[in-house]
Amino acid sequence: MSGIKKTSKSWTTRRDQKAVRLAKIDHLLKGKLLGNAHIIEALELLISPGDKVVLEGDNQKQASFLSKALNEVSADKINGLHMIMSSISRPEHLDIFEKGIAEKIDFSYAGAQSLRVSQMIEDETLKMGEIHTYLELYGRLFIDLIPNIALVAADKADAQGNLYTGANTEETPTIIEATAFKDGIVIVQVNELVEELPRVDIPASWIDCIVVADQPYQLEALFTRDPRHITELQILMAMMTIRGIYERHSVQSLNHGIGFNTAAIELLLPTYGEKLGLKGKICKHWALNPHPTLIPAIESGWIESVHCFGGEVGMEQYTAARPDVFFTGRDGSLRSNRAMCQVAGQYAVDAFVGSTLQIDGEGNSSTVTSGRLSGFGGAPNMGHDPRGRRHSTPAWLDMINEQHELARGRKLVVQMVETFQSGNEPVFVESLDAIKVANKQA
Amino acid sequence: MSGIKKTSKSWTTRRDQKAVRLAKIDHLLKGKLLGNAHIIEALELLISPGDKVVLEGDNQKQASFLSKALNEVSADKINGLHMIMSSISRPEHLDIFEKGIAEKIDFSYAGAQSLRVSQMIEDETLKMGEIHTYLELYGRLFIDLIPNIALVAADKADAQGNLYTGANTEETPTIIEATAFKDGIVIVQVNELVEELPRVDIPASWIDCIVVADQPYQLEALFTRDPRHITELQILMAMMTIRGIYERHSVQSLNHGIGFNTAAIELLLPTYGEKLGLKGKICKHWALNPHPTLIPAIESGWIESVHCFGGEVGMEQYTAARPDVFFTGRDGSLRSNRAMCQVAGQYAVDAFVGSTLQIDGEGNSSTVTSGRLSGFGGAPNMGHDPRGRRHSTPAWLDMINEQHELARGRKLVVQMVETFQSGNEPVFVESLDAIKVANKQA
Repeated sequence: MSGIKKTSKSWTTRRDQKAVRLAKIDHLLKGKLLGNAHIIEALELLISPGDKVVLEGDNQKQASFLSKALNEVSADKINGLHMIMSSISRPEHLDIFEKGIAEKIDFSYAGAQSLRVSQMIEDETLKMGEIHTYLELYGRLFIDLIPNIALVAADKADAQGNLYTGANTEETPTIIEATAFKDGIVIVQVNELVEELPRVDIPASWIDCIVVADQPYQLEALFTRDPRHITELQILMAMMTIRGIYERHSVQSLNHGIGFNTAAIELLLPTYGEKLGLKGKICKHWALNPHPTLIPAIESGWIESVHCFGGEVGMEQYTAARPDVFFTGRDGSLRSNRAMCQVAGQYAVDAFVGSTLQIDGEGNSSTVTSGRLSGFGGAPNMGHDPRGRRHSTPAWLDMINEQHELARGRKLVVQMVETFQSGNEPVFVESLDAIKVANKQA
Repeated sequence: MSGIKKTSKSWTTRRDQKAVRLAKIDHLLKGKLLGNAHIIEALELLISPGDKVVLEGDNQKQASFLSKALNEVSADKINGLHMIMSSISRPEHLDIFEKGIAEKIDFSYAGAQSLRVSQMIEDETLKMGEIHTYLELYGRLFIDLIPNIALVAADKADAQGNLYTGANTEETPTIIEATAFKDGIVIVQVNELVEELPRVDIPASWIDCIVVADQPYQLEALFTRDPRHITELQILMAMMTIRGIYERHSVQSLNHGIGFNTAAIELLLPTYGEKLGLKGKICKHWALNPHPTLIPAIESGWIESVHCFGGEVGMEQYTAARPDVFFTGRDGSLRSNRAMCQVAGQYAVDAFVGSTLQIDGEGNSSTVTSGRLSGFGGAPNMGHDPRGRRHSTPAWLDMINEQHELARGRKLVVQMVETFQSGNEPVFVESLDAIKVANKQA
């Protein structure tokens, strides 16, 4: 057997490259502060072709100033980027691929851009990496998708560069941690610079460059639903869920998907649920964004705790006024954390209740339909029975359905669907579109 | 249907209680700083009977000053605590139950205390909550095990209360986040107070009380193994693993358990692996603590990245000198993060290779044997095929073993065992001891 060949390579290439790049914008910086008129110039100096760039864009909060700036860099200077994004949400998230600035994408969710993503793959304008759940994508940031550059958004910064992300802390700390501690460059857009932060969500020593955006970051009010639009059928389904699932299995902790089906459940707890005598017995602990439809159940004392993935536009004052229920900081405002809420939603709740677009005869379900590539978001993470779970709860034990002495409990995973979705498309299908789509891509 | 009953209760009970408790130690504090002679008095004023107390004690880093102090509070004043601990590692972690200071425990791993835990349950000195994997326990901190008190350890603090946790950042930020943002009280023991921190790992606005311990926190050198003790059989098994599993399935990212079996694999990569022409093809990305046995593979250029759960005594300078491989901070030293490394190990690696004590005829395995309650640690989290995984890698796809059109890839989960473990106990058994133990507890 041959001896060990020791390499004579440098072990600080990432750190050295970072120093070289930051030195190029030194003349543009005051401390860590960059004037926003210089952002395009700075990005052209800080980013190199082929870099792995993680751009914050989840289904609510967007680093919109930075994504617009990235879309305006010269494709002669910056090209072939490997983008990593939780969510493809804004037009420029895809424009950069048409211009050649970016080449490949790894993501979790496409939402509004799902039709265009599908078309761009067909046209070979965009090279698809992989589609993930949120938590899975965060995991890869520490393994084989380690970023060179992070472009993220915060509410406020102080002169040292400490950040306040408040109710919309979301995935910002996770993205920054993976980048900052592997000698990547962290560029943050903030809504404002202040003398003193309400609290520090992310320490200055993780940050390289701060720019005050020309307008606040884009923030979508994703979870707000007007209860007037809840149908009688949805109310009936919600009653069936409360009676037939939550009561029957003593579901004490849970995660709900977004939409009128689950909103109806949330709203019915203090009336129908109260009538059934279920208060204090079900639905006490939640992994959920601060849906306004939770308010009646909170006010009537049903809900003990809610941990949030992100914030919700319009709910800032309410969550701040209910610190016994929500996770809030010393300043009084909500603290969310998408990664930890995904962990909690995966491992620490009795039930996941969501919605889907297609279900086959074996109960397999998918939100992938022909011509759309919407991705997964958090659902398959929360909506599977985690085989590494070891603790038990009444609901979990109640799901044991075999006599085997090694039989395990299960997480309750519920899909609430109507027989036909909008446009009279059938939900129950012979074969999932996902199979055709996958075969086509293979 | 009756109307919604609105409660008139306070929504700030946790915050109010926290303020009342902190006011009681106001005379003992200078800013956030508490003199270490006053720690027992302070704990008696800050903790209430029945509180959920999360005490940092993982398999390496121990908040030993605080656990000793907790063991000396008056059981007349503080009793019936519900302890939450990753690892039961020190004698006083159990002494507090014998004194009645604590009553119930939720934990992940018992290690050296596993025999005593088992005995104390039998004697009803200790009321068992649940046993978890690390990640699962962290998830519950945000759902139904929200702490009232966190007792944690850091290397250094500054006068404001910012913390430096350096290489042993471990689970400290996760524990603190769950406590601080739900109006719990965060008490930190530090090795020293400094003018300026090398970097900030945890912001001061998450911390309530800092005490300089009389000696540095206990830190175990858990992963250090003297290669002289590796047997010829272990070398043979390591060669079989490299050839038969890593090469065959193109395993590029992985997690190894602790012990001589996997240490032998790590050591053999630059010799046996090199001879097979596998450099750059396998074992590039790791979720692993900085085992000294990785050094030859790192030095010979095999390993691209290692993300760490925790640090490793004696490896501080080495990791600091290899920032291209390890995650390090601006100060140059390692940053670990147990929660995120567990996420990465669960979702982002091709293979988990560990060891176990018993395997039955169907391949079920367990480290629970009669008279011991060692718990799970991280193994079942990393060592299961996560059904929520959606991205593919060559190894993952290679594990498809059915023709079904919805067939999924799998994570490779490997248990390396010899037919007999130490003491000539058979590893392959008719029925796992875990079943007997579980039946006895039920």
